[in-house]
Amino acid sequence: MGHHFSERERQIIYRVIRERRDVRSQFLPDPIPSEVLARLLRAAHHAPSVGFMQPWDFIVIDSLAIKQKMKAIFQKENQKAAENNSGERNDLYRRLKLEGIIESPINLCITCDRTRGGPHVLGRNSILEMDLFSACLAVQNLWLAGRAENIGVGWVSILDQDDLARTLQLPPDVYPIAYLCLGYVDEFGSQPELQTKGWRTRLPLHELVHHNSLGTPLKEGVLKTALQDQESLNT
Amino acid sequence: MGHHFSERERQIIYRVIRERRDVRSQFLPDPIPSEVLARLLRAAHHAPSVGFMQPWDFIVIDSLAIKQKMKAIFQKENQKAAENNSGERNDLYRRLKLEGIIESPINLCITCDRTRGGPHVLGRNSILEMDLFSACLAVQNLWLAGRAENIGVGWVSILDQDDLARTLQLPPDVYPIAYLCLGYVDEFGSQPELQTKGWRTRLPLHELVHHNSLGTPLKEGVLKTALQDQESLNT
Repeated sequence: MGHHFSERERQIIYRVIRERRDVRSQFLPDPIPSEVLARLLRAAHHAPSVGFMQPWDFIVIDSLAIKQKMKAIFQKENQKAAENNSGERNDLYRRLKLEGIIESPINLCITCDRTRGGPHVLGRNSILEMDLFSACLAVQNLWLAGRAENIGVGWVSILDQDDLARTLQLPPDVYPIAYLCLGYVDEFGSQPELQTKGWRTRLPLHELVHHNSLGTPLKEGVLKTALQDQESLNT
Repeated sequence: MGHHFSERERQIIYRVIRERRDVRSQFLPDPIPSEVLARLLRAAHHAPSVGFMQPWDFIVIDSLAIKQKMKAIFQKENQKAAENNSGERNDLYRRLKLEGIIESPINLCITCDRTRGGPHVLGRNSILEMDLFSACLAVQNLWLAGRAENIGVGWVSILDQDDLARTLQLPPDVYPIAYLCLGYVDEFGSQPELQTKGWRTRLPLHELVHHNSLGTPLKEGVLKTALQDQESLNT
């Protein structure tokens, strides 16, 4: 343990970070082998968590009945969401496919048990939300591991949390962090789908980096140049 | 783009996930070259975000005056936190080193601008916290990229958020998600530090995995066996 990553290994890690995508529409019906799913769950479980509290649970969903309930919850919420856009933007919104609940072979809900570890979790006295944030880190580990396995992952966030909690029988202290769709895909897009479809573009990174306080831009110098060079490599 | 990862490449990705650590006490004084810091920031910027809103900003902190203010904020909060533990647990708590604010060459605050992208961000109508969750995904990308560069990252969560916001001049709509310490380290622990020091152990993964609803354990079968096999590989 503790040994270094080589330049070539680093490149692979950066590649998986760059080539990960939110997948909604290219799911193949091929089942995910249990050994592969176990690897993804283990990657999630190795996320950092505040006070090592490991607040997550993983609900593996393959029941069509549950998926159909979830799809209905999505449709109700998405109808409301669509009305927030008008004109061309509304047309574009309605053309976007925003979930693959039914088509993906596995749905996975990652939850956060807000009582795990007792009332005083180390590092969670000042910021109570640290448990929720920790569970998010598990999502990202799983997302990257999925990409490495050629499994697309899509996060469905257009869901009523109370309806979802009822459907998955979550007790009041368990918060559903992420409802994910998982499945093999033929290929991953070269850009985020919302960029390809003209919804929004990637922000210039160097404009998001500040020096010692928010609103103090980086001075002209090596870091700013390096950030601009990075941006030009690809999106 | 879109090509597969080989078995060997996959192993490297799983390795960085397993060997990432929360670092508090082994920081070396060596400066982080700008090109390396730029790669870490780019990895964070390539995180997924709800509606591609990219709500994050990155405040690179190298000012000793700011670090000292942050350390004082930590000390005040940590004093309060220590009092939540009694007896042996209190002694152990006080012996743990929980931050490396001053010693690490770079502190980095990742924030979430809750107004970015306007009032109706795609996918953020039902769950308003999706912007905060997205910013967490950026933290995990940076954390893994750090490990790949042999840079330790520690998340300091024992901070008063209002004091922190004032120190970094954050406007009311910008929430400080993570205050991180970054620096090269000689080696990474083979286990999380809180495990090595006897604070808490890793939970058995198969007990955290449920089937179609929370509280329904996995049946004996391939997935359960695969999860148990995974656990036996290492912690």
